[in-house]
Amino acid sequence: MLIVFGSVALDTIRTPTSTLHEVLGGAATFSSISASFFSKTGIIGVVGKDFPDFYHDILNKYVNTDGLNQKSGKTFRYDGEYDITLSTRKTLKTELNVIRDFNPKIPEQYLKSEFVYLANNDPDQNIEIIKNFDNIKLSMCDTVEYWIYTKKYSVIKMIKNSDIATINDEEARLLTKEHNLVKCAKKIIGLGTKYVIIKKGEHGSILFHDDMIFPLAAFPIENIRDPTGAGDCLGGAMMGYLANKHNVSVKTVRDGLVYGNVLGSFVVEGYGVEKLLSLEKIQIEDRIKKYKMMTQRL
Amino acid sequence: MLIVFGSVALDTIRTPTSTLHEVLGGAATFSSISASFFSKTGIIGVVGKDFPDFYHDILNKYVNTDGLNQKSGKTFRYDGEYDITLSTRKTLKTELNVIRDFNPKIPEQYLKSEFVYLANNDPDQNIEIIKNFDNIKLSMCDTVEYWIYTKKYSVIKMIKNSDIATINDEEARLLTKEHNLVKCAKKIIGLGTKYVIIKKGEHGSILFHDDMIFPLAAFPIENIRDPTGAGDCLGGAMMGYLANKHNVSVKTVRDGLVYGNVLGSFVVEGYGVEKLLSLEKIQIEDRIKKYKMMTQRL
Repeated sequence: MLIVFGSVALDTIRTPTSTLHEVLGGAATFSSISASFFSKTGIIGVVGKDFPDFYHDILNKYVNTDGLNQKSGKTFRYDGEYDITLSTRKTLKTELNVIRDFNPKIPEQYLKSEFVYLANNDPDQNIEIIKNFDNIKLSMCDTVEYWIYTKKYSVIKMIKNSDIATINDEEARLLTKEHNLVKCAKKIIGLGTKYVIIKKGEHGSILFHDDMIFPLAAFPIENIRDPTGAGDCLGGAMMGYLANKHNVSVKTVRDGLVYGNVLGSFVVEGYGVEKLLSLEKIQIEDRIKKYKMMTQRL
Repeated sequence: MLIVFGSVALDTIRTPTSTLHEVLGGAATFSSISASFFSKTGIIGVVGKDFPDFYHDILNKYVNTDGLNQKSGKTFRYDGEYDITLSTRKTLKTELNVIRDFNPKIPEQYLKSEFVYLANNDPDQNIEIIKNFDNIKLSMCDTVEYWIYTKKYSVIKMIKNSDIATINDEEARLLTKEHNLVKCAKKIIGLGTKYVIIKKGEHGSILFHDDMIFPLAAFPIENIRDPTGAGDCLGGAMMGYLANKHNVSVKTVRDGLVYGNVLGSFVVEGYGVEKLLSLEKIQIEDRIKKYKMMTQRL
């Protein structure tokens, strides 16, 4: 079973075409649902007493929610606004609420898991939680701007302790103070992780490992509604794919990233988790085939 | 022989690390030199009496310059400044000089050419010049912001009359008034061209043809010195590759774009044309091999 630890949120998302108020979101939500297309997935996270039952039911349909704690207090809230290009998002509000000082109870049956994804979350909590897993074959972490600003050294420590670090381009620049993404990636690898994935939104992603670089174009999408969660879906699907293959060869990691890219391309076609909830495995395989045809050459 | 028509310029380029004053540049310069690695190439263009002989000698070393007219007056000048990220360039000055109202004499031996590249230049001149070629198998055009602002309808007519239109992402958005690049490309295909290539700088390029989309990641470069000419090198190398193959199948067009991408990745490693002038064919083939290894998967 893949274990995903991260935020479960009530998101307010303002896009040029629609505004969503307090809808199901959060890194662990997007990534664990994406992972569930490939692997049995268990989620660790925390929500408040205000978390709607039907959101809990949605999660429960896709993933094991034994690790989803409910605490007194309010659920983590995020509020962000996209500009007209849908490529820049301004954070209006981040309310940690129950996520602050969360000390998760980990279900017994999660502890033997070999694949753990530390989705975006407080890096100190991420560092603590991974210590509970004794059989780790592959760990991956993600982070966002908020934690780089508020807990940079914890972010660095978390990356050092993960096999794969994913980060988006602007966050990689913020963390390393470099503009060039190859330089960013080299600095991040230098922190002690084995792989770095730099996520570039509509421009795809780049995987770095040792001296190797694997750039991946994005699957082009004509009607993007809401980019929220695309990076989380990438990470989740990739880890789900790897957990299912039970293999951590470089080739498998690359293949996993292709699946991650493709899951990211689906989620942006709907608002919030909407598209994920109507997605079928056959559509994923179909898009993977299309992507292969698009990108094979020479 | 591939014929390249376009600007030959004296460029002033301001990068965060160096400023070049009135160095050899222009779309026809970058693209014809790039093309010459693959095909015999003839250039059509105009320079003023102030064009240095040693720049003429450089061009002459790579391409047939019988079509490079010299007029009384000053050579076309461009002055632009990159920001610290090297991904945004501000135009400080565009002086058309001898390019304005240029009415080229085309050498007799050029006229049977089947491959013609209308590199960035006055679109009205591009439209006129292509009428002189009766055996065209494949034509490609490029344009920039300046012409979209000043002669939009001529740009549209030029695109309609070309088999392949190349354009960078921001210019595609400017021309079509769409943000999404798939939508941009569909609108440009709708103008009457068969292929559209949207160039995305460090993020690679996307080729559109009928309902097909071929996204290409860029070859990642760690030390970018000066992005000037990368798009021109892409177009020139691609057309040189196609002229050499004497084939215009979709597969060959895609392969050509891979070569174009790779030539673009070389030129940015030096200032101005510097890197092109030290480039060897074997280095190109070597990078093509590396690119294939980087991007093959599944």
